[in-house]
Amino acid sequence: MTSPEPQAVDTDVVVVGAGYAGLTAAARLVDAGVDVVVLEAAERVGGRALSEVLPSGARVDHGGQWIGPTQRRFHDLAARFGCRTFPTWEVGKHVEVWHDGACVDYLGAGRPTGPGVAEYRRVTALLDDLAATVDLERPWTTPRFAEFDALSAQDFFRATTRDQDAIRRLALAVQGVWCAEPREISFFHVLFYVASAGGYEQLMETGGCAQDSRFAGGADAVARALAASLDGSIRLGEPVRTIRRTAGGVEVATGRSVVRARRAVVTVPPAALGRITFEPELPPARRGWARCSPMGRVAKVHAVYDAPFWRETGYSGIATLYGTSPVGVVFDNSPEDASLGVLVAFVYGDRLDGWADSSQPVRRHDVLAALAGVAGPQAWEPLDYVEKVWPREHWTIGGYECFVTPGGWTAYGEDGWRAPTGPVHWAGAETASVWNGYIDGAISSGDRAATEVIGALKARTG
Amino acid sequence: MTSPEPQAVDTDVVVVGAGYAGLTAAARLVDAGVDVVVLEAAERVGGRALSEVLPSGARVDHGGQWIGPTQRRFHDLAARFGCRTFPTWEVGKHVEVWHDGACVDYLGAGRPTGPGVAEYRRVTALLDDLAATVDLERPWTTPRFAEFDALSAQDFFRATTRDQDAIRRLALAVQGVWCAEPREISFFHVLFYVASAGGYEQLMETGGCAQDSRFAGGADAVARALAASLDGSIRLGEPVRTIRRTAGGVEVATGRSVVRARRAVVTVPPAALGRITFEPELPPARRGWARCSPMGRVAKVHAVYDAPFWRETGYSGIATLYGTSPVGVVFDNSPEDASLGVLVAFVYGDRLDGWADSSQPVRRHDVLAALAGVAGPQAWEPLDYVEKVWPREHWTIGGYECFVTPGGWTAYGEDGWRAPTGPVHWAGAETASVWNGYIDGAISSGDRAATEVIGALKARTG
Repeated sequence: MTSPEPQAVDTDVVVVGAGYAGLTAAARLVDAGVDVVVLEAAERVGGRALSEVLPSGARVDHGGQWIGPTQRRFHDLAARFGCRTFPTWEVGKHVEVWHDGACVDYLGAGRPTGPGVAEYRRVTALLDDLAATVDLERPWTTPRFAEFDALSAQDFFRATTRDQDAIRRLALAVQGVWCAEPREISFFHVLFYVASAGGYEQLMETGGCAQDSRFAGGADAVARALAASLDGSIRLGEPVRTIRRTAGGVEVATGRSVVRARRAVVTVPPAALGRITFEPELPPARRGWARCSPMGRVAKVHAVYDAPFWRETGYSGIATLYGTSPVGVVFDNSPEDASLGVLVAFVYGDRLDGWADSSQPVRRHDVLAALAGVAGPQAWEPLDYVEKVWPREHWTIGGYECFVTPGGWTAYGEDGWRAPTGPVHWAGAETASVWNGYIDGAISSGDRAATEVIGALKARTG
Repeated sequence: MTSPEPQAVDTDVVVVGAGYAGLTAAARLVDAGVDVVVLEAAERVGGRALSEVLPSGARVDHGGQWIGPTQRRFHDLAARFGCRTFPTWEVGKHVEVWHDGACVDYLGAGRPTGPGVAEYRRVTALLDDLAATVDLERPWTTPRFAEFDALSAQDFFRATTRDQDAIRRLALAVQGVWCAEPREISFFHVLFYVASAGGYEQLMETGGCAQDSRFAGGADAVARALAASLDGSIRLGEPVRTIRRTAGGVEVATGRSVVRARRAVVTVPPAALGRITFEPELPPARRGWARCSPMGRVAKVHAVYDAPFWRETGYSGIATLYGTSPVGVVFDNSPEDASLGVLVAFVYGDRLDGWADSSQPVRRHDVLAALAGVAGPQAWEPLDYVEKVWPREHWTIGGYECFVTPGGWTAYGEDGWRAPTGPVHWAGAETASVWNGYIDGAISSGDRAATEVIGALKARTG
């Protein structure tokens, strides 16, 4: 029953988590001459960005994978390390499988027809109008804040339209953006998020929007490069167990180390905060915020083929599925040179539950059935088939990010969202004002937390 | 509360049912100079053969649709009325969707590889060996009759192989032939049926076998022609309520008529006999046989396209699906000149239950998903989509035919299968020795029953 004595480490700032937020914070602090230790639970950096080279040679992104033109911080960081991007493939007919099995092929982003489209557009234009009123830095000062936060997205949709087809479209959009169901999410959070991205279209579309481009070397390449520049200060495989406030700042314990620092930057998503014991315990607002911030439920499934065969018959490989398939959306994730064909299927929200509980052969069958249905029978025979079920990941427990349940912003937002807790500063994509929930937001959150810490360290020194 | 007095009709023989069995019996009797009245519950003739011209112009067979080269009686009857047949389309790659989503494309009937195929072939060769011992006229005299009849097909498969993949193949074969599950069906009945068809391959394959050819004018065209030749003796829309034995023979009552005859030929499937009241009630063996003869559960779903587009990419349109889809088998049911493309999906056995209980949009979605998965995304947009759920048909209550449950043959076969009950003679595909369950068997059963009746009438006269 003997275990090695934990190693004691002294530093200025301890950063918990080596995803984009933590790495950015650490880099900013190091640049400012601050001594930093980064503790990462996993044996790798990148957090919810994770790429892998499969046996076929295809590199796939299991997590975040896109970058859009207005995501300036992510662009700047990628440019700094020379990480090359290329446009998401969207040439050809997109397939829309309607809930009754009716199918619409449509070209590119233009979607001229389809049940409920006109009403869907009316409602999303209204979302944009309401989102324009949101104060991104102090969301609780937004007009009608409490009124909207008391509603679920579903409440709002039902009160706004009787068109069931439009509601079907809105529901898939909520699944696609938040990996949750409209009944689960605060309508104010929807507005905040739309505002944070710069408009509804930014969230939904490909070219010019959030899904504009992909990374040749995987979306975690930038994180890996950033981590390499922090050589020596990152400790992998050290899940933080306890964060204790001390006279001098904080003492952060993992199984192997105790890191003493003046300040901490914690980038753990709110929903995963329960994995860490805080002494003294976190204030009620921060605990309440975490309770009201569940993580979305998503799986990404990649199937690799020897060529993007769907392009030969004029299909883009992009599909949206409203029916009984577990798959909601499909994208062409082939490499830039089309040396292989790759389809990615997203399974999210309620669709994930039954699927994830099935046996592997059933899961595989049902995803390949969807892919064959939108790309052709050749899709049944992938060279590689690989699933990433994010709710099964021990440290990230879901994806893409935490959303906020109805009433959560009102009850806990002002004090619980990202206000520092003594020597503990909060970062992570969920704490961003711009591109909240995205890698770009994670980067800006790390930057903001580093700024807070530098200010606090100066104040104490000064 | 007054209703018109039933019309009294006197004739030599009353035939109940205007499917192939009843029409054949009636025609044979008329040819022999016997006066006949045919009572048919539906407003049409043909029974479980039923074709329809859809809005697209495609003629589809909702019921029985094929004819094979060894089905001589059906061939002779079709030839008599000049009903033209053409080969079932089977050119190109067949698709086999395995339970885990793995797909095998194979050419024609040659299926060289695939999980469990070798063991499946070993078991089916054993079926053929055992079937060769069956006495088709007096099945209860077959060696090991009671032993095999005590087993379900599932019992036999499990005792014969441990190869789960082979068992999956056998289970789909049972669904495909009997529209039932292996646990439900007597293993002796399987052997009897294999023998009745002339071998296992005859049941399963296309060219040269039971699925060899289709009718240009629908598989009910022969029945319609035969009915036209019986002009005047068929009364449609007259479901039989009561069959009463009288001193002179039988008295058969519908809501509109009472037909008095010396003999009756009843072609109603055993599972539907409960719809008729017999006075005195049927003997225990016939009632027991009916109880042990449930009707298979099947739906046929047709989707019509402007062309058989799957042929352009080298696919035959023939597919077998072992996964979670409700669809088990798909065939190319296009017209001979390929002026339209038609796919037919079979949903049977346990697969039918959940599917049939779903809403129409879900049913449609799930069938089109299967078709798109084996033919390509164009399959999502049929010109016509039409379902025939046979268990919902009031008078036929299922399809293709009644099978026999374990122990049924032993307990009731000798006295209950087709032995006449006083003046009532039994016909229908279920009573045939050759091609039992098929249109060819229905025809021969009508012939046999007519022979019985003619003999009985002569005996009484003579």
